[in-house]
Amino acid sequence: VIQLRRPYLLFLGDAGDQLAAKTAQGVRDWRPDWCVGQLRLPGCKADLGLPDIGLHDAYAIGARTLVVGVSNRGGQISPDWMPTLSSAVAMGFDIASGMHDRLNAMPELLWLAERSRSALYDLRYLSVQTAVGNGAPRAGQRLLTVGTDCSCGKMYTALAIERELRQRGHAADFRATGQTGVLIAGSGIAVDAVVADFMSGAVEQLVPAGDPDHWDVIEGQGSLFHPSYAGVSLALLHGAQPTALVLCHEPTRKHLRGLPLASVPSLRECLEANLRAARVTSPGVRCVGVSINTSRLAEPDARRYITEVEREIGLPTVDPVRHGVESLVDGLARA
Amino acid sequence: VIQLRRPYLLFLGDAGDQLAAKTAQGVRDWRPDWCVGQLRLPGCKADLGLPDIGLHDAYAIGARTLVVGVSNRGGQISPDWMPTLSSAVAMGFDIASGMHDRLNAMPELLWLAERSRSALYDLRYLSVQTAVGNGAPRAGQRLLTVGTDCSCGKMYTALAIERELRQRGHAADFRATGQTGVLIAGSGIAVDAVVADFMSGAVEQLVPAGDPDHWDVIEGQGSLFHPSYAGVSLALLHGAQPTALVLCHEPTRKHLRGLPLASVPSLRECLEANLRAARVTSPGVRCVGVSINTSRLAEPDARRYITEVEREIGLPTVDPVRHGVESLVDGLARA
Repeated sequence: VIQLRRPYLLFLGDAGDQLAAKTAQGVRDWRPDWCVGQLRLPGCKADLGLPDIGLHDAYAIGARTLVVGVSNRGGQISPDWMPTLSSAVAMGFDIASGMHDRLNAMPELLWLAERSRSALYDLRYLSVQTAVGNGAPRAGQRLLTVGTDCSCGKMYTALAIERELRQRGHAADFRATGQTGVLIAGSGIAVDAVVADFMSGAVEQLVPAGDPDHWDVIEGQGSLFHPSYAGVSLALLHGAQPTALVLCHEPTRKHLRGLPLASVPSLRECLEANLRAARVTSPGVRCVGVSINTSRLAEPDARRYITEVEREIGLPTVDPVRHGVESLVDGLARA
Repeated sequence: VIQLRRPYLLFLGDAGDQLAAKTAQGVRDWRPDWCVGQLRLPGCKADLGLPDIGLHDAYAIGARTLVVGVSNRGGQISPDWMPTLSSAVAMGFDIASGMHDRLNAMPELLWLAERSRSALYDLRYLSVQTAVGNGAPRAGQRLLTVGTDCSCGKMYTALAIERELRQRGHAADFRATGQTGVLIAGSGIAVDAVVADFMSGAVEQLVPAGDPDHWDVIEGQGSLFHPSYAGVSLALLHGAQPTALVLCHEPTRKHLRGLPLASVPSLRECLEANLRAARVTSPGVRCVGVSINTSRLAEPDARRYITEVEREIGLPTVDPVRHGVESLVDGLARA
């Protein structure tokens, strides 16, 4: 499992709008202390509210990883970015990129990186290949966020729970299983890049046994009901060996993300399927609450929906952005 | 998806006993017409009852793939085998190997293969990387064998069903998802070697839409209850989009294979979990029967056990080796 060098300089390139800088925004929101500034090219329309700073100055004040935190159509690394990336590597920066295009497939960068002993991290492809999972019981408390669909708030919910646990003085660590999460944790794997045989084993390695009162808060991926990714979700569930689950849901989806013909499972059905599957490696697992992403609902509708879910499922239910995760963490503390 | 050139010459090396030639034995049992003979080195203690034949003679009568169908501790390619493998490649044979050691990591073989335009297939690592799965409904009939555990008869059962369907005049094709299966099908993938993101997509590519009355009989892998491999099993279940399942079980296991602490699920529990998960991409899926591997039971015990299962589950139950798969295929025909 890799460890990114900090602090970061966030590279926004020529991002066409604020949304294109979503990855960098996540890092800035959750780890502001790790970000010395932003580096923008002419025409960049995103702004993270960080100081604009050049490579030399950033390196001088300690930055060690240039984060390519911008997305565009196809996830390509633009030729316009290459002078910046090359200079950064030559100067001794590591680069961490969430693009589809691989830094490690670019001869110029590889050559420079070897000369300056820099690392090139392609976050979408971060993997560890060691052993298959064994499901053996391990100590420590582990919370996994699971969901009815992809992209419904699993990373955000996990990060909010880590923050709340720490604010209450508990030992807690967010464990990243996807590219943005890895930047925010400074470490982790992209579980969907692991060879199938080693998926649950990779998660066991990412989240080893912990102290009995330490919480590992693990970022979930996909959904047991998503035909593209359910295998990843199940391996993550078995490998994580969670003592607690939080179920995440976006209530306005008409179908599963990317699949117009696939219907979203009910919360009850999804909860039961996750608990049943989790018991294979964690017989005492329980769900401590539901996290609803109500960003597309007006406040009264959001309140009404959450009250309905709370009544139907019988567990604390929140929108972590609008209402915080206090009631979810209360449930953990009671355990 | 690769296509192996036929017929095969089966290389048994210096196999220490008959069991070490298990892979070759499977090919010989299920595809005798594809095997021109066996090639054994001094000290080989296995015998498939095929003519012993050298490389030149085998090539002259049409053999085009040398199958390394022998296993030893660690799955290593023995230095003693290298003269045979090198000569075969130089002569124009393809090589298909189920060893852990990779043919494609051996410079001498790579060099010879390039010169003679031969292919080197490392069957454990056969993969296709194209698109993620989409779960879209597709035509044709598909049967998937699922199991309570690894290595409980899923490949054997699928092959027996393919044979029975063909004997009754139905169009049917065995679809291989593991290394021995690939040799027997002449084609396929090792689904546990696929990158996680592409597992169900790889299965959709392996088993595309078929004619309405054509049966694809798909080799299952692992078990939804096996903490090492359940993610692979779920992706295979979703990607296969089976219209029919057959549940496979070995009744004498005290625990899941390789995991002394993991208990074997009940047949009922396993059946329900598989049907529930399969409905995500195949709402009309049904289980047509149970296949019991009674090889470790005496005949009266086997009979008694099978009768019990049949009563408990309410579906045709057989040991495919002892009793054939007629009653399972009857169930398919009725659909």
